[in-house]
Amino acid sequence: MDHSQLFENIVAKRSFLCVGLDPEPEKIPSFLLKYKDPVFEFNRLIIDSTSQYAVAYKPNVAFYECNGTKGWKSLEATLLYIRKTYPGILVIADAKRGDIGNTSKMYAKAFLENLPFDAVTVAPYMGEDSVTPFLSYNGKWVVLLALTSNRGADDFQYHNEDGIKLFERVLSVSRKWGNINNMLYVVGATRAEMLKEIRQLIPDHFLLVPGVGAQGGSLDEVAKYGMNSKCGLLVNSSRGIIFADNTENFDKVAAVKAREIMLEMERHLAERSLI
Amino acid sequence: MDHSQLFENIVAKRSFLCVGLDPEPEKIPSFLLKYKDPVFEFNRLIIDSTSQYAVAYKPNVAFYECNGTKGWKSLEATLLYIRKTYPGILVIADAKRGDIGNTSKMYAKAFLENLPFDAVTVAPYMGEDSVTPFLSYNGKWVVLLALTSNRGADDFQYHNEDGIKLFERVLSVSRKWGNINNMLYVVGATRAEMLKEIRQLIPDHFLLVPGVGAQGGSLDEVAKYGMNSKCGLLVNSSRGIIFADNTENFDKVAAVKAREIMLEMERHLAERSLI
Repeated sequence: MDHSQLFENIVAKRSFLCVGLDPEPEKIPSFLLKYKDPVFEFNRLIIDSTSQYAVAYKPNVAFYECNGTKGWKSLEATLLYIRKTYPGILVIADAKRGDIGNTSKMYAKAFLENLPFDAVTVAPYMGEDSVTPFLSYNGKWVVLLALTSNRGADDFQYHNEDGIKLFERVLSVSRKWGNINNMLYVVGATRAEMLKEIRQLIPDHFLLVPGVGAQGGSLDEVAKYGMNSKCGLLVNSSRGIIFADNTENFDKVAAVKAREIMLEMERHLAERSLI
Repeated sequence: MDHSQLFENIVAKRSFLCVGLDPEPEKIPSFLLKYKDPVFEFNRLIIDSTSQYAVAYKPNVAFYECNGTKGWKSLEATLLYIRKTYPGILVIADAKRGDIGNTSKMYAKAFLENLPFDAVTVAPYMGEDSVTPFLSYNGKWVVLLALTSNRGADDFQYHNEDGIKLFERVLSVSRKWGNINNMLYVVGATRAEMLKEIRQLIPDHFLLVPGVGAQGGSLDEVAKYGMNSKCGLLVNSSRGIIFADNTENFDKVAAVKAREIMLEMERHLAERSLI
């Protein structure tokens, strides 16, 4: 999928919602525990109930890896289910990998080839040769961490050299490694006021924005400062949708929550005359 | 294992060698392909032939993950084999993980609990709450990236605020999160001249030093600038040992290479009167 196709999908669905599939073991509704793979059943029901409102899914690999080989099977089954059932939807492995070149090449193989995700999140600390191996897959994306949504973002991401903060340097250096068809950036919704500045550096790239909902970020602010003429946003919600309810109705409640966000997104798209 | 025990192991073995278990699929000797799990067989033979010269093993998770669930089985089998057969040896998961708090907690569970590694490498970009969940396991370690051995280290790690480089800020901020018994740092051997400066910031911590051998770093320089009164170094070699030969003798050649490094290390330890 490229930049134009992603925008077309957004227009078609009137939504730029990415649903985070972070199945915290303790939060999976107990009635699902009777299944052989409760994590996959949980995801399948969430996907079926939210797919009409979402343009992307983002399984966070940690929540699978913590179950070892069983977890990897759940992750693979989830990816293949989305591929088969909802083929137009972007699927992002939220893995935050990154290592020296020959090692990043193996991570790229793991997440873009053996598990055929469309995109993988990558940490920038180790620089260019830790990121570029992920860029050699045609039609696939690197989602590079720039400014994250957590409190710890303050520790290093604002380190300031001659007025240039580290996350700004990450943006301005790394945008040369790829292009708007194979790179997007993580910018946390809890830092929405920074989006204005960020759009000076990368006006056209898509941004993956976590932190709306449970982490306190505001969709209005994100849209105000971050939206561009091709939308340019994928806003992620995880806990606010998938764990809104823990009864046998959890998937129906998830659908209600996803639709609420979609309707807000539709309004923002309409206000910018993008739909 | 704590700081004192690690030093005792170094004294007993007269070595501070960590062997990197990075089984690149194309480099595994072909005669091993007949086994059900060639990666594990490869590792087992390397471990048996080098264990008397090494105080630590460091499987790089990427080289397992690229084989999916099969790879995770090889990783688990390798860890359990070392635990059972050579119980005193430190085993580090080179995973370079790191995410927001509730997610790092899951990665910590994956690598310090479900897979009972002694230590896991973590990337610092996302700050304190991405690292501290790994520190809540008694007797276990975080190995935090500071200054890496690759070319891309130049892209961001030297970003300089008022004379303080990013990797120095990582050291001075993060040393408060833990202590010398639960944190060590990655400092690449290809940047050995920086070790003098780094020792001003963290005089007592152990450093995990990759980049000797295939990547061009010098053990003499690392020992000169990085060694402290409890050695304070774990020097990693991967390709230079495990892929020194690709015939049926590969394990014997690996033993020869590991012994050569151990003898150099013994000389450095003796010169500092640590043995």
